[in-house]
Amino acid sequence: MVETMRGLKRTHNCGELRANHAGQEVILMGWVHKRRDHGGLIFIDLRDRSGLVQVVFSPEVDKTSFVKAQRVRGEYVLAVRGTVRIRPEGTVNENLATGEIEVYAEELRILNSAKTPPFYIEENVEVDETVRLKYRYLDLRRPDMQQVLILRHRVTKAIRDFLSERGFLEIETPMLTKSTPEGARDYLVPSRVHPGEFFALPQSPQIFKQILMVAGMEKYFQIVRCFRDEDLRADRQPEFTQLDMEMSFVDREDILSLTEELMAYVFWETLGIKLEIPFPRLTYQEAMERFGSDKPDVRFGLELTDVSDLMQDVEFKVFADVIRKGGQVKGINAKGCASYSRKDIDDLTKFVAVYGAKGLAWMAIREDGIKSPIAKFFKEEQLVAIRERMAGEPGDLLLFVADRPAVVADALGHLRLELAKRLQLVDPEELKFVWVIDFPLLEYDEKEKRYVAIHHPFTSPVEEDVERLEAEPEKIRAQAYDLVLNGTELGGGSIRIHRRDIQERLFRVLGLSEEEVHEKFGFMLEAFEYGTPPHGGIAFGLDRLVMLMARKESIRDVIAFPKTQSATDLMTQAPSPVSPRQLKELHIKLDVVAKK
Amino acid sequence: MVETMRGLKRTHNCGELRANHAGQEVILMGWVHKRRDHGGLIFIDLRDRSGLVQVVFSPEVDKTSFVKAQRVRGEYVLAVRGTVRIRPEGTVNENLATGEIEVYAEELRILNSAKTPPFYIEENVEVDETVRLKYRYLDLRRPDMQQVLILRHRVTKAIRDFLSERGFLEIETPMLTKSTPEGARDYLVPSRVHPGEFFALPQSPQIFKQILMVAGMEKYFQIVRCFRDEDLRADRQPEFTQLDMEMSFVDREDILSLTEELMAYVFWETLGIKLEIPFPRLTYQEAMERFGSDKPDVRFGLELTDVSDLMQDVEFKVFADVIRKGGQVKGINAKGCASYSRKDIDDLTKFVAVYGAKGLAWMAIREDGIKSPIAKFFKEEQLVAIRERMAGEPGDLLLFVADRPAVVADALGHLRLELAKRLQLVDPEELKFVWVIDFPLLEYDEKEKRYVAIHHPFTSPVEEDVERLEAEPEKIRAQAYDLVLNGTELGGGSIRIHRRDIQERLFRVLGLSEEEVHEKFGFMLEAFEYGTPPHGGIAFGLDRLVMLMARKESIRDVIAFPKTQSATDLMTQAPSPVSPRQLKELHIKLDVVAKK
Repeated sequence: MVETMRGLKRTHNCGELRANHAGQEVILMGWVHKRRDHGGLIFIDLRDRSGLVQVVFSPEVDKTSFVKAQRVRGEYVLAVRGTVRIRPEGTVNENLATGEIEVYAEELRILNSAKTPPFYIEENVEVDETVRLKYRYLDLRRPDMQQVLILRHRVTKAIRDFLSERGFLEIETPMLTKSTPEGARDYLVPSRVHPGEFFALPQSPQIFKQILMVAGMEKYFQIVRCFRDEDLRADRQPEFTQLDMEMSFVDREDILSLTEELMAYVFWETLGIKLEIPFPRLTYQEAMERFGSDKPDVRFGLELTDVSDLMQDVEFKVFADVIRKGGQVKGINAKGCASYSRKDIDDLTKFVAVYGAKGLAWMAIREDGIKSPIAKFFKEEQLVAIRERMAGEPGDLLLFVADRPAVVADALGHLRLELAKRLQLVDPEELKFVWVIDFPLLEYDEKEKRYVAIHHPFTSPVEEDVERLEAEPEKIRAQAYDLVLNGTELGGGSIRIHRRDIQERLFRVLGLSEEEVHEKFGFMLEAFEYGTPPHGGIAFGLDRLVMLMARKESIRDVIAFPKTQSATDLMTQAPSPVSPRQLKELHIKLDVVAKK
Repeated sequence: MVETMRGLKRTHNCGELRANHAGQEVILMGWVHKRRDHGGLIFIDLRDRSGLVQVVFSPEVDKTSFVKAQRVRGEYVLAVRGTVRIRPEGTVNENLATGEIEVYAEELRILNSAKTPPFYIEENVEVDETVRLKYRYLDLRRPDMQQVLILRHRVTKAIRDFLSERGFLEIETPMLTKSTPEGARDYLVPSRVHPGEFFALPQSPQIFKQILMVAGMEKYFQIVRCFRDEDLRADRQPEFTQLDMEMSFVDREDILSLTEELMAYVFWETLGIKLEIPFPRLTYQEAMERFGSDKPDVRFGLELTDVSDLMQDVEFKVFADVIRKGGQVKGINAKGCASYSRKDIDDLTKFVAVYGAKGLAWMAIREDGIKSPIAKFFKEEQLVAIRERMAGEPGDLLLFVADRPAVVADALGHLRLELAKRLQLVDPEELKFVWVIDFPLLEYDEKEKRYVAIHHPFTSPVEEDVERLEAEPEKIRAQAYDLVLNGTELGGGSIRIHRRDIQERLFRVLGLSEEEVHEKFGFMLEAFEYGTPPHGGIAFGLDRLVMLMARKESIRDVIAFPKTQSATDLMTQAPSPVSPRQLKELHIKLDVVAKK
């Protein structure tokens, strides 16, 4: 029989009791973490959000409680009135914050019973993720999951404290908005009132935040849900949370330094970690050249070295041909890997093949010279030059990819990460932020046969480059920036175009007709005619930030109720079929092709 | 030609300059609020989020700026470098916070031009709301709209500060969730990955917040967007924002007193208004009896008086018949309205007819006795008794409605509000909070021929009433409560059922079969079997709270980008048609009946 709390009021949280509470009467409420009978006593570890405490039931202290406690099982909900006592010598538990004391129960009420959970409520228990997600309410009882949600709360609180202090206003933007013709795939919401029409859930509040700058709000932020109906990769969710910011009358430096101070504040307030600011910066070009990635992990070396110029005259046809066709040969010096076996190198070759590399050439530097299947195609002085360029020393393994620059960067960029993992070069405690700046504004889209904006068509070019916009579109740098932490892109943004003349020139370079411009960006362009201030902003993936702060592997571990990779909520079984009446009201019919 | 900010950095906000800045060089950036030529000088009121300041352009100070300033028009965006000077005697503007000073411009840059806006950017300008919503970016430039968004930011900040301090965690719940079979109409989102299936946007996070209590989070809150696809009344929006809270191991008193402290904190921190707490409480029954409403405006009297017992033997058939059929006769004493004309009373009669009242009887108390078309049906002592019961004095007008109790309450409840408006009894500055408690748990649904839950089927009955659940379902009180401010429901909540036995009994009383229960509440009931703590919560309409705090008439005035009553965003023109490809991907077709 289940009892009520009536007359009892919790006085303490389980996890906060210490030796200085000894002698006090306390009332605790929580869950049975573990129960054991021992020497005529019953011991229950009682758990609440704050932690665990040991409660002792003794027939000599209170017979009724002792008898009731025999019925208690794991995850029962209890209220306990009792007295805190120092534990007898030799029974102190040093692994437990409350380990110096225990509570002798004088009254026990069973507030609720519980079925046996499908898995133990313990830290670091290995449970299949589908089971964890189906029983998320039990998964979230695990102390480490609770700590993650507490951290997440504290991170958002710190962000809001910092930005409010700096005069930013949090302003809510609509969730039921207009389908955007560019970008990722929208989630759509049929309108009941307007038959045949649809709202879209926002991929980001980009347009609204720029409109808020037109509206003179000057400093805006929002921690906001965003939606993308994409095929989910490991680290994506159909709905995710973004810290979105926009400012007027600022330049790039203002935004970068504000962001740095924000990050320093958040890491200090929530984790007690002091970040060194300002963060180092890499241009896009440098990041691609040295790390083969626009989100470089700079916690370790293994940088890419261009040896193309040394390869022009070599007899090794594969390399020479690539160079002749305008390609590149770049290498990584895998320090201390000269002893890699044939199989190791085969594995690495398969690894780079995933990124399009047709092969992986290698040279092992031994005390007695270079060992390599391709060494015979090189003259001695060529080998010396290569080795020198790549700072090769005895014991090192030089690895090469020859291909178009994009393939070389992608293959070697990923090979670099793979080698770092194998060589355990990464200190998991280390936090290395880096800005990547000066992204290209445009890239040529082979399919569409026109230039497209890499960020979005409101991104401002770097001022010095504006005059060459039409002459050398692919060389124009954007006033865009990404913040990267440990090789993960935390966020990015740009200074926006606020001048109509530049905006119109950019649209022409993008090959958009006036009609297209009107249809796609009409109301926004109209807004921009009424006195738009210079402005810019940045947005961060909050889930990813918290994931890195909590040192978790997946954003699913930092979202209370995440979806699976097939965009399903295993707990509620969403999505699900709806009634014909609901569809009728929304003026839609199903168009489902029966599965074969 | 438009210029850049390069080399200039804003030093001050316009609205913050005072006499003590005199002699300082300042750099300001903002919008041209007004411009006038006068005596060889040009005066520009420059506006930013902080307010206005007068900038003076003189050919003697800087010829170039003066010439440029001649080109400037309203809403142009400017950067001005200049020196603060005390205004000459006689030109101080006491209506302006910066009215003691002006800024003599030494450099002017035109950062952007502007078309002439469709309405003046002024406070309290009368503009058609459709124009305001279409040009929301201009509407939001008006100082009073900016103040509203600033207040809204401060209110949410204060709520988060208060709740975080009390150990509450803000936890995000999904937006793409399961369609709920009860409640209002859902907005649906077709799934691309699961053909024929749909997500629903949440009407509230009710189920998730209870699940979080099962998960042991203990104290949860969230400021969260909610969605209801209803036909919009004046004060509703398809998407609205809710402050949602839930707590474990608490009883009703804990929730009410926490809420009172929260409101007191928020009003003090944001408006400097000291609320008196605790708030008074009315039972549902008392609220209905005295005010004819479960959201009574208690800023004034005009309470309802039951005179049914005095009417049993009267000759006035209309009243006597109603009483005989189990109805009521109740009245309001309209103080000082004895001189109301026939037309006034006709108007009031039409007014109550809207709420179903078939008539409005009246008795005017004059110095020389009672004047009333029905007086002749009453004996003298009956008139005396009525007058005494209703504290009638010479000059008063007694108004009566006789009908079923629900009609009497609705008609007189609204009549009371209408009279208060006519008699100007309401001090617009006054804030009167009141709790309405002890709502009925169930009501009999004549259409469905069964009892239905007034709040929702997880609301706990009052403990003393539980044993009579099956015997007298309509008399069971719920542990539910609403908070009412000045006659507007701010929010409400309840203690939830956490005991399986009571939940099952309630479902039986609701006439639900085991299958229905499983289908509708299956995963939640399963969750509840794994050790659910006693818990309860409350939720508030944030838009409405801010509306009352800002003394606005419509929630559209406290939402940055609201929708019209036909659920349209006039600025972006959402909803809108989408491409056939998008529909195909979502496995739906349009089912639109052509308009005749």
